[in-house]
Amino acid sequence: MANILVINGPNLNMLGKREPEHYGRQTLGDIIEELENLADDYEVRLYNFQSNAEHEIVERIQAALNEIDFIIINPAAFTHTSVAIRDALATVKIPFIEVHLSNIHKREAFRTHSYFSDLAEGVIAGLGPIGYQLALAAAVEKLK
Amino acid sequence: MANILVINGPNLNMLGKREPEHYGRQTLGDIIEELENLADDYEVRLYNFQSNAEHEIVERIQAALNEIDFIIINPAAFTHTSVAIRDALATVKIPFIEVHLSNIHKREAFRTHSYFSDLAEGVIAGLGPIGYQLALAAAVEKLK
Amino acid sequence: MANILVINGPNLNMLGKREPEHYGRQTLGDIIEELENLADDYEVRLYNFQSNAEHEIVERIQAALNEIDFIIINPAAFTHTSVAIRDALATVKIPFIEVHLSNIHKREAFRTHSYFSDLAEGVIAGLGPIGYQLALAAAVEKLK
Amino acid sequence: MANILVINGPNLNMLGKREPEHYGRQTLGDIIEELENLADDYEVRLYNFQSNAEHEIVERIQAALNEIDFIIINPAAFTHTSVAIRDALATVKIPFIEVHLSNIHKREAFRTHSYFSDLAEGVIAGLGPIGYQLALAAAVEKLK
Amino acid sequence: MANILVINGPNLNMLGKREPEHYGRQTLGDIIEELENLADDYEVRLYNFQSNAEHEIVERIQAALNEIDFIIINPAAFTHTSVAIRDALATVKIPFIEVHLSNIHKREAFRTHSYFSDLAEGVIAGLGPIGYQLALAAAVEKLK
Amino acid sequence: MANILVINGPNLNMLGKREPEHYGRQTLGDIIEELENLADDYEVRLYNFQSNAEHEIVERIQAALNEIDFIIINPAAFTHTSVAIRDALATVKIPFIEVHLSNIHKREAFRTHSYFSDLAEGVIAGLGPIGYQLALAAAVEKLK
Amino acid sequence: MANILVINGPNLNMLGKREPEHYGRQTLGDIIEELENLADDYEVRLYNFQSNAEHEIVERIQAALNEIDFIIINPAAFTHTSVAIRDALATVKIPFIEVHLSNIHKREAFRTHSYFSDLAEGVIAGLGPIGYQLALAAAVEKLK
Amino acid sequence: MANILVINGPNLNMLGKREPEHYGRQTLGDIIEELENLADDYEVRLYNFQSNAEHEIVERIQAALNEIDFIIINPAAFTHTSVAIRDALATVKIPFIEVHLSNIHKREAFRTHSYFSDLAEGVIAGLGPIGYQLALAAAVEKLK
Amino acid sequence: MANILVINGPNLNMLGKREPEHYGRQTLGDIIEELENLADDYEVRLYNFQSNAEHEIVERIQAALNEIDFIIINPAAFTHTSVAIRDALATVKIPFIEVHLSNIHKREAFRTHSYFSDLAEGVIAGLGPIGYQLALAAAVEKLK
Amino acid sequence: MANILVINGPNLNMLGKREPEHYGRQTLGDIIEELENLADDYEVRLYNFQSNAEHEIVERIQAALNEIDFIIINPAAFTHTSVAIRDALATVKIPFIEVHLSNIHKREAFRTHSYFSDLAEGVIAGLGPIGYQLALAAAVEKLK
Amino acid sequence: MANILVINGPNLNMLGKREPEHYGRQTLGDIIEELENLADDYEVRLYNFQSNAEHEIVERIQAALNEIDFIIINPAAFTHTSVAIRDALATVKIPFIEVHLSNIHKREAFRTHSYFSDLAEGVIAGLGPIGYQLALAAAVEKLK
Amino acid sequence: MANILVINGPNLNMLGKREPEHYGRQTLGDIIEELENLADDYEVRLYNFQSNAEHEIVERIQAALNEIDFIIINPAAFTHTSVAIRDALATVKIPFIEVHLSNIHKREAFRTHSYFSDLAEGVIAGLGPIGYQLALAAAVEKLK
Repeated sequence: MANILVINGPNLNMLGKREPEHYGRQTLGDIIEELENLADDYEVRLYNFQSNAEHEIVERIQAALNEIDFIIINPAAFTHTSVAIRDALATVKIPFIEVHLSNIHKREAFRTHSYFSDLAEGVIAGLGPIGYQLALAAAVEKLK
Repeated sequence: MANILVINGPNLNMLGKREPEHYGRQTLGDIIEELENLADDYEVRLYNFQSNAEHEIVERIQAALNEIDFIIINPAAFTHTSVAIRDALATVKIPFIEVHLSNIHKREAFRTHSYFSDLAEGVIAGLGPIGYQLALAAAVEKLK
Repeated sequence: MANILVINGPNLNMLGKREPEHYGRQTLGDIIEELENLADDYEVRLYNFQSNAEHEIVERIQAALNEIDFIIINPAAFTHTSVAIRDALATVKIPFIEVHLSNIHKREAFRTHSYFSDLAEGVIAGLGPIGYQLALAAAVEKLK
Repeated sequence: MANILVINGPNLNMLGKREPEHYGRQTLGDIIEELENLADDYEVRLYNFQSNAEHEIVERIQAALNEIDFIIINPAAFTHTSVAIRDALATVKIPFIEVHLSNIHKREAFRTHSYFSDLAEGVIAGLGPIGYQLALAAAVEKLK
Repeated sequence: MANILVINGPNLNMLGKREPEHYGRQTLGDIIEELENLADDYEVRLYNFQSNAEHEIVERIQAALNEIDFIIINPAAFTHTSVAIRDALATVKIPFIEVHLSNIHKREAFRTHSYFSDLAEGVIAGLGPIGYQLALAAAVEKLK
Repeated sequence: MANILVINGPNLNMLGKREPEHYGRQTLGDIIEELENLADDYEVRLYNFQSNAEHEIVERIQAALNEIDFIIINPAAFTHTSVAIRDALATVKIPFIEVHLSNIHKREAFRTHSYFSDLAEGVIAGLGPIGYQLALAAAVEKLK
Repeated sequence: MANILVINGPNLNMLGKREPEHYGRQTLGDIIEELENLADDYEVRLYNFQSNAEHEIVERIQAALNEIDFIIINPAAFTHTSVAIRDALATVKIPFIEVHLSNIHKREAFRTHSYFSDLAEGVIAGLGPIGYQLALAAAVEKLK
Repeated sequence: MANILVINGPNLNMLGKREPEHYGRQTLGDIIEELENLADDYEVRLYNFQSNAEHEIVERIQAALNEIDFIIINPAAFTHTSVAIRDALATVKIPFIEVHLSNIHKREAFRTHSYFSDLAEGVIAGLGPIGYQLALAAAVEKLK
Repeated sequence: MANILVINGPNLNMLGKREPEHYGRQTLGDIIEELENLADDYEVRLYNFQSNAEHEIVERIQAALNEIDFIIINPAAFTHTSVAIRDALATVKIPFIEVHLSNIHKREAFRTHSYFSDLAEGVIAGLGPIGYQLALAAAVEKLK
Repeated sequence: MANILVINGPNLNMLGKREPEHYGRQTLGDIIEELENLADDYEVRLYNFQSNAEHEIVERIQAALNEIDFIIINPAAFTHTSVAIRDALATVKIPFIEVHLSNIHKREAFRTHSYFSDLAEGVIAGLGPIGYQLALAAAVEKLK
Repeated sequence: MANILVINGPNLNMLGKREPEHYGRQTLGDIIEELENLADDYEVRLYNFQSNAEHEIVERIQAALNEIDFIIINPAAFTHTSVAIRDALATVKIPFIEVHLSNIHKREAFRTHSYFSDLAEGVIAGLGPIGYQLALAAAVEKLK
Repeated sequence: MANILVINGPNLNMLGKREPEHYGRQTLGDIIEELENLADDYEVRLYNFQSNAEHEIVERIQAALNEIDFIIINPAAFTHTSVAIRDALATVKIPFIEVHLSNIHKREAFRTHSYFSDLAEGVIAGLGPIGYQLALAAAVEKLK
């Protein structure tokens, strides 16, 4: 049974409170619950992690080595600033998909650069919470 | 019953023959067939269009006005060069998702710029043929 | 009697349907009709050509060699992308005025570069359909 | 009866003496005289102002508030350097057309940037003195 | 009674020890004490927070939602690197003033870019510890 | 008794008429009157100067040599274009604070560069008319 | 017997009429005739294709798969704008030489970038019609 | 007898008071007096003009048309900002030498760009007041 | 007896597991053990600190004030992103050498910029674990 | 009988030893011998010069004045760094073709800039040793 | 017994006379003497070469082919300008360490780019003459 | 008696033969002869050196240490490429003036950057051979 880790970066714990024109009104709890149901359908085990701290995400990824088969990560603000998380992903060499709730191409110019996209299996952006579900579907497919 | 148009740009008719390290071995026919099955499941009507000619894509989009509810487009090479197709999409104001088979962030630098992403509902890149299926799922969700 | 060719680029056949905040509500047919009336007043012969295809515009310009005395061109999206049309104009060496309906300086940054302006007799931008009429007046004046 | 103000920037008082390959041989007096005749035909009142001093143009524009309905401005060298005149135009919020006698795209690279174009109703460049007449025609049309 | 939160970023706990030519000899404790006296005069409640950790600042801002009326923030090094704190401020939508003790325009080139200034109510830079007092005065004024 | 000179650049004489979303509804006269009252409280002598002309500001600064102890300057449009005023300030070596009514970081990109900030004692931006009062308070503090 | 395809891009059908200071006075027909004679000498079969349409060139290249051993291409204006033709060449993986009649380094700055050179076996530029003959000689040599 | 005009730009009236590490301790009066003595030796007539106002320099240059044979200009701050003075010099087509007292390459980066150098006969920079004398010697030589 | 602090940044705790083509197969423990032996030989006291958290490194450096004589730091990913650690080093003013295990010039372009190099005594890059030993030798030499 | 000079720049004396994936296995001696045979066929006199020293190439070109009719030059590393050789070629005004053995567009980014291409009659790149033979053929053709 | 070549570039023969704040007071002779003693300790043979001429360094490197096992090079000014020496090192494929006496990151901006670093085994910068000794230690280690 | 060294860089030995529109028709011998006469008048000793080789110029400058009081240098092509000569001048710390015969601002863009100007006492450009005489006059003045 495959193990899939979902990582959410800073301020995503505020979902539903934060700039709804970009992120919708669902809370992160709602999103994860839906994902877990879907994971049951796919018969994969889902691990969920959110942190506002770069080093906690780095260390969660390090701990995933030899335990996790696929990562779905929404690095949020760290997309544009964290080489440390990039390096953690490169170290453990676990395949991952990068997800963004909002369309980063419609926002500030600095959001068009990602430290993750060139290492990712793929990128899904702008589709709101359903983006996680698509990523999970893709992950399951890739792990077949 | 919703109408969804799938547009594929230049050289995608060569899928299966072309740089398999980027695009996999399925033909475009295979991909469309799978999509059509999925569309049946979702109870939406799927229209399929491929062209190597920018103006044919422009005119297919113009013809979609008032007939198509959602567009899934893989502009291929035109991603980086066609303002005309961008303008056609802006004219008809049909919501669309941009799909790329390969991860454009792992390839030549000029592939990181898209004339479409800031207008799109969302972008799905690097996941191979399954990307179209995810886009269809997202489109169906958006049209609810 | 002088021959003047009016060329309209991609998506201008959609005028009236397309982003009215940029282009107004007149159709291209309306605009051409007004221009033809004006041409009668000026006693010049007006030729009218619209295409969404770069190569058709290239070939219309090639065919103009030795037949057309002045060109009024609104290259639309091709303003920013077509070296081929630029080269066609440079080949036939027919003087031309570049017209834009909307003010390209108020829109996306990529619209501020034109492959035509440095070859043109002049540029008229942002004045809506009347821009064509001004261009015709200028053309008539230049041909005196 | 509409009031239209024509503003000419630095060195345009030298017209006819200055680089005739760019600006032709007519003096500014000649041009204004023709414009005034045309204004009579259009039944609008024309105000004429030329200055080599940025602050005088700023103050002429400030004085136009509530008195002038449309401005035709050839900022000449100030096109590329004057934020103060830009701000004056933004303050009074009188619609204006930017006119250039020569084709700024055929000259030095620094002439391709204008501090005015993104605020203007439209831009007319490269058509010589007739450019003012076209601007007047457009202004009259806009004021209808 | 209004609640105002003062946030100080990394290394500001070293004030008085650190590069006195940029930051003066007062300690952060001294500065806060003066500010608290001033807050008493203004009859506002002052909350004080310093951290060297980006995530702690993110979480302090998140906790301010619905509790704090105005933020005065000196992001220090995070000015130039933290999208996460920017996003936290955008999430809670509490108005804030950005303060810098030293004149960032006199220092290394990378210090001229701030991830905060375009979201801030205002920016006060280069005036030393008095900058906080001015910010407090402005905050009180804005909250009237 | 210290002498403080307040300089206001082009178009600030239009305050209250100009883009109120950026600058508020107070006139410059109102602002100066408030400042003068505050100056009386601080027991400093306030000199007030506004001009739309770069050279008049240059010459006012030159005349301040040996007479003025501190300058508060809002260079307005000249912030981005005047090396001459910069050089005047560098010549007389009178300490100065740069004030902007609106937040220049929220406006056009060209407004983010200032020819003054790296020479200034400090910069106060975006706080509206109260910015002058804060600058005066800071000036008084610096002159102690 | 090897099959060699010669592709000429837009406006090359106008050779002899177009900017003779860059391209000389020979027509494309003359050039091809000479090339065919040379091909006879080399005992290779020459296929000749000119088009002003990007998609026709894309499709001619697609059709060359498994039929053509070497391509000599003068993409003309498409050199600088066509990712689609680049992708077609990458798809069929037929070795090719890029030829330019004029020296692109002596012309407009935008002509120094080619979407083809980094994929080509080699590049021959500036030598006029003889460039095709040299390319043919090189192709024959490479096919040995 | 040749007429030579010496123009000095903004803040040069402050020479001797201004940043002596860049400009030395001589006043402009001292420098001009020495130049006039030298002009007597060379048997040329020297005209002297200093202004802090761009438009006054523009108009002095316009007035020089047909009267002055050579201009020596130290545009000071206007070196980097005045297209209007550049245009005035281009209009009158009087040959000129650009002089800078200080070495502009040792100062702020923005001082390395001049709007005058590409039109000048020559440039003399960094040699202090003697630079004017060398320029006069060169002017006399050029006028032979 | 001199005190030397060795700081290792994020993901260096994964050494031996992480991208061995860049970093070799030794663990960080192995490297530190060798360094400690060497420190004994040199008769200096070695302090060892690794963290994945920027703020912990900032605070370790702050704590070093007046206790540590020299720092050897491999900031890893923070090399390219941490102004906070840079500021901490600038605050305590302890001399330091920057060490990189891999040759950052052979990797992604963003790795060529360091926020530390211009403050460092020196930089040693690309030599693998021996780089630390060389840094220790240099530190000992500098402290003589 | 025409005189043709072949110049080879630094490290080309190492051909056959150097990066064979770029340059092939032939020595420079082999290449020159083939060229001399070809020159005999063409009835031109061939002069051969290789140097690793920029000044020797400069002086060989100077000595060619009035003696050599055409130059074939492979500047190797000097392509990207030598203004002196560029100036020598501009001085003697002997027409020349620039040859590169490898395809410079497939290598490091700094190799895409040449100080020679805009002065050359033409450029031949990427075709290996046969490039010299094509250049000789072209030279002979040009000298007819 | 391993052979190690130490190469020093232009002006390093002036060590001790040249900018001591960057390079210290030792002569190159002193440095080499120390290195030779160290080489004896390591039981390697040291070859020493200094030249101010790029071609002499190129040729010394060429001569090292098959004779030298490791190169320690301080290219000095050639670091930033010599593609020829880079190519020589790439040709002979002898591993090398790049050494700089001063910290190039503290000096002019152009010194931050090196044509050598991406080919080097490693880089040691800013540590003064001891840098050579560290490089020698590293070379000996690498050759084990 | 002061010793002044005149250094001329590559291709200046060709003066009179080379691009006369930039450099005039005098030979370098003529120029030096005139300079020597002038040196006699000034009672200084003139040393003359021309070389096409960078290292010879480097070594001539090194040899000038303690012997030469002032250098007049026209680095020609090395202006834009030689860090080695820059370093030599910085080493010997002899004051120098940089001379260019032609106006480098009227030529190719790469000629506007000089590796010498920020170290020079001053720069004289565009005045032809008289530029050397002015430099000599300035040198004599500086040595007083």
